[in-house]
Amino acid sequence: MKLYDTTMAPNARRVRMFLAEKDINVDCIDIDLQKGDNLTAEFRAKNPFAKVPVLELDDGTIISESVAICRYFEETQPEPVLLGTTALEKANIEMWQRRAEFGFLLPTGMSFQHCSGFFKDRMTPNQAWGEDCKKSAYGYLKLLNQHLSNSTYLAGDHFSIADITMLTTLDFGRVIDIRLNDKHEHVQRWYDLVSQRPSAKA
Amino acid sequence: MKLYDTTMAPNARRVRMFLAEKDINVDCIDIDLQKGDNLTAEFRAKNPFAKVPVLELDDGTIISESVAICRYFEETQPEPVLLGTTALEKANIEMWQRRAEFGFLLPTGMSFQHCSGFFKDRMTPNQAWGEDCKKSAYGYLKLLNQHLSNSTYLAGDHFSIADITMLTTLDFGRVIDIRLNDKHEHVQRWYDLVSQRPSAKA
Repeated sequence: MKLYDTTMAPNARRVRMFLAEKDINVDCIDIDLQKGDNLTAEFRAKNPFAKVPVLELDDGTIISESVAICRYFEETQPEPVLLGTTALEKANIEMWQRRAEFGFLLPTGMSFQHCSGFFKDRMTPNQAWGEDCKKSAYGYLKLLNQHLSNSTYLAGDHFSIADITMLTTLDFGRVIDIRLNDKHEHVQRWYDLVSQRPSAKA
Repeated sequence: MKLYDTTMAPNARRVRMFLAEKDINVDCIDIDLQKGDNLTAEFRAKNPFAKVPVLELDDGTIISESVAICRYFEETQPEPVLLGTTALEKANIEMWQRRAEFGFLLPTGMSFQHCSGFFKDRMTPNQAWGEDCKKSAYGYLKLLNQHLSNSTYLAGDHFSIADITMLTTLDFGRVIDIRLNDKHEHVQRWYDLVSQRPSAKA
């Protein structure tokens, strides 16, 4: 089994952190996005959508999309549970996971793409859109701060994949100066708790 | 149990179609997005993120995010299976679901928001970004067409939630002139198959 991985991207790190929580070791192959390793014919043969990370099973089966990879491991090795046990837990974790993805990971990623110029050789940066996304990311932090005033983790009393998505994106956000400030005391309390987990080193 | 729903949006329709596949009836309450029914204090008390659809259970528990709602029903009434049975099926469906969401639903939705002016009272449309998104949506259709040249449904031999996401978005895309053309013969074959399902009337 091989994981085509990249160091900096939050999508890649959230899979590594998920695997670390489950104490699963997978051989990682680094794909350098800035050099365009993901745009080669060889890589596109594995994933036509040219996205990282990609999991390749021993029989050659490909699973791409970070959360699809996580789901595969949740099913093959349920403990510790990171996607929920009961119907309501699963739905609640999925809700907070998607709020973190669409409300924070997506605008943070687009702000990076459109404001940093990192991928300007392969896209047309739209500065105004990137700045709008940054505002959206802060809008999400405001709502999350209210939620975390009476919830230990994003999806309640238990650590879940939603916390992994949020933590890895928040760490990544620093590169475009999306940071917690004194208005985010409850997010800061949660961040201090979650970032101390051994898996956060992944 | 109540579903706060809206007629036109693909996110709302994909939940209705998912429920129709499972033959589950839920009382629907229409939320008019253009009038801003989702922006009231009353609605934000249910979903601070102000998004539709929202499921309210009889005990007042709230589940928002379309796929979280679908997952709740998949867990409480597994048949017919729409999210997979084995680890590999679940991962493969999650992969195609997310490819459809990030590769097609998201750019189609953003193209609508930024090019139609529908929400111009509450956002700053960015025409150039909306047009870029439209190109991305067509880029996805090209890749999907290749995939569907040797796959009956998005995730293989069985109909799944990924097909629901794709069908509802493709129908919605017409309002901003994102349409299949003669380059998309395999997507057209799939569309003709899937749009005949009784649940597509939802």
